[in-house]
Amino acid sequence: MSVTVDGSIEVPPGLRDVVVTTTEIGDVRGREGFYHYRQYSAIDLAASCSFEETWFLLLEGRLPSAAELTSFVAEIAPLRVLPDQLRTLLPSIAALGAAADPMSGLRTALSALGAAHGLPALWDAAPDRRRADALLVCAVTPTILAALYRLRACLEPIEPRAELSTAANWLAMLGISDPAPAHVRAVETYLIATIDHGFNASTFTARVVASTGADVASAVTAAIGAFTGPLHGGAPDRALDSVDEIGTPDRIDDWVRAKVLAGDRIMGFGHPVYRTEDPRAVLLREKARELGGPLVEFATTVERRVVEILAEVKPGRELYANVEFYAGVVMELCGIPRSLFTPTFAVSRVIGWTANILEQAEGGRIIRPAARYVGPSAPQPLPPR
Amino acid sequence: MSVTVDGSIEVPPGLRDVVVTTTEIGDVRGREGFYHYRQYSAIDLAASCSFEETWFLLLEGRLPSAAELTSFVAEIAPLRVLPDQLRTLLPSIAALGAAADPMSGLRTALSALGAAHGLPALWDAAPDRRRADALLVCAVTPTILAALYRLRACLEPIEPRAELSTAANWLAMLGISDPAPAHVRAVETYLIATIDHGFNASTFTARVVASTGADVASAVTAAIGAFTGPLHGGAPDRALDSVDEIGTPDRIDDWVRAKVLAGDRIMGFGHPVYRTEDPRAVLLREKARELGGPLVEFATTVERRVVEILAEVKPGRELYANVEFYAGVVMELCGIPRSLFTPTFAVSRVIGWTANILEQAEGGRIIRPAARYVGPSAPQPLPPR
Repeated sequence: MSVTVDGSIEVPPGLRDVVVTTTEIGDVRGREGFYHYRQYSAIDLAASCSFEETWFLLLEGRLPSAAELTSFVAEIAPLRVLPDQLRTLLPSIAALGAAADPMSGLRTALSALGAAHGLPALWDAAPDRRRADALLVCAVTPTILAALYRLRACLEPIEPRAELSTAANWLAMLGISDPAPAHVRAVETYLIATIDHGFNASTFTARVVASTGADVASAVTAAIGAFTGPLHGGAPDRALDSVDEIGTPDRIDDWVRAKVLAGDRIMGFGHPVYRTEDPRAVLLREKARELGGPLVEFATTVERRVVEILAEVKPGRELYANVEFYAGVVMELCGIPRSLFTPTFAVSRVIGWTANILEQAEGGRIIRPAARYVGPSAPQPLPPR
Repeated sequence: MSVTVDGSIEVPPGLRDVVVTTTEIGDVRGREGFYHYRQYSAIDLAASCSFEETWFLLLEGRLPSAAELTSFVAEIAPLRVLPDQLRTLLPSIAALGAAADPMSGLRTALSALGAAHGLPALWDAAPDRRRADALLVCAVTPTILAALYRLRACLEPIEPRAELSTAANWLAMLGISDPAPAHVRAVETYLIATIDHGFNASTFTARVVASTGADVASAVTAAIGAFTGPLHGGAPDRALDSVDEIGTPDRIDDWVRAKVLAGDRIMGFGHPVYRTEDPRAVLLREKARELGGPLVEFATTVERRVVEILAEVKPGRELYANVEFYAGVVMELCGIPRSLFTPTFAVSRVIGWTANILEQAEGGRIIRPAARYVGPSAPQPLPPR
């Protein structure tokens, strides 16, 4: 890092470790293997609280009283229902392209929602209005995703139910009827544990857009775009695909060594921030073990061997299972179709994005860094014509 | 700027002057009042070249030969035509919300295009495919914007015409038939001059999303979101609204002084980077004068008095007309409806965004900075429940 003659500031590539803003929403302490939302351990929250309590905490900075929680839940329930204009549009969005993935459908639908509601710029909106817009986007996200999924499968969308928790409602809207309470709680645990996680690229994208004063839909659709990037991470289906590809315990070693030799990444392992086990992996491994079954047994074996082999062939790199690995196992055990693993992640992460958007909207300068021009010197005269 | 004990790097708010990346696309030299695309002055290009030549330059780093230009124009022409799925969807997007603005419609339509075409992640796509996707998004953007405009006015969209330049085609698709050649050239000059302009917030947003390896549509829709932010700047309609509001020369002084007293920004004046006249304002003032007429006379008078009064009441601030001020005048003289001033800006800026996206896709680390947690210390025990 250095300041050059022209006053520009050179920092590490990718802005690594560069502090863009202060935040009161939470933090990831990579060396300790610890992350928190507001003043509480996210793992404690995932173990003991409801998704809605944690959502309230993210927004308000404290856990709700019983009365506040009742009122918050009542506020969210009607926002889950698809607005009419979106209801009309969703079949067309679902029909887009044979290969259309759920996240580009969500990006399109939330962009349409912003247009339909004429959401005001954050810069022009009072705090109450900003909060209402954020709640709307978060509450309707699972409904959109579930409706797109069912429309693509030529099934009728299932209406959200006000009396269900976010987790139970998500499963119900996917058509998973009467799930075991342990499954609902496992999904809720996963959702809570993935609401927020420091300044990942999608959260940062949301804050950059919010810093221009644009509306909540613009900031969230931008975040979804970043979220779909292969380098963003967080695609739990890929990790589980690898487990399936390995197939049997005797094939683990060969598979892993071949991957390492080819220089391929092993999905579900390693994290840019944690130098310890990913606390989310620890939590979800425990959840998976509670649910039990042959997939869990096998996945645990795979994890152990992968970590051992990686320690051997990449000594000092401290590569452990990340959140993707056991997230996939838990979702598979709970009956969530694999194409909905990433969308399930989005159901929770949209809460983190909007909490960050609302914090960014409270103040702070537009995020507008610089680039260093390294091309041929300018101006050169235009060639003769 | 400083490095703290934990290795994090403190920089000025909003990442001001922080160098995120190197670029060969261009630069803004604020102290000199100069900006360039690749090795050429953008003003020289706007004065002497076609939009398509400049577009080629942005992508390839050199101006095209005559044969290359012919081939490039032929490559773009079919991409202007709305793909079928988008053609079907656009009336529904146009119908979203009474207050829906053109930019949220464009954001939604390009997101839908990305879904419909199943655009591959930049990370997975070969350079040729990335370039093709970028050309598609740029070429179809004016068609989408014009179609949305006409659908909202209950008019049939007008098909793009392969034999017209981007500027002439834009006017034709808006229904401005047989424009004077001077009007077409004035619009083309404006479009060339606004293709790119350093690391503004929307361009930076596009690069952040591209750095995750996501697809071109994700990066461009994110950029559009940032572009709609009131702090991004570049809404030429607002500046012209002010000119209208002032109405007559005798009202200029009172209007400006009242604005300054109220602490309001005067739209169309001041720029975060230029410490001189904005070279785009100088160019467009000249264009406006060539076209002539009472609006130009009045706008020039307003500009002169605003600069004088600002110099008097905010000495040392060096506030001049920016690109918005004369852009609005030029577009008004060329018959572009005021609601399409910002969309016209998007017609050119999408070229800059995609050039930056393609450059970002060539390599470089994911852009993932940090935040400093400043909330209550964590972890605190969960309250008794």
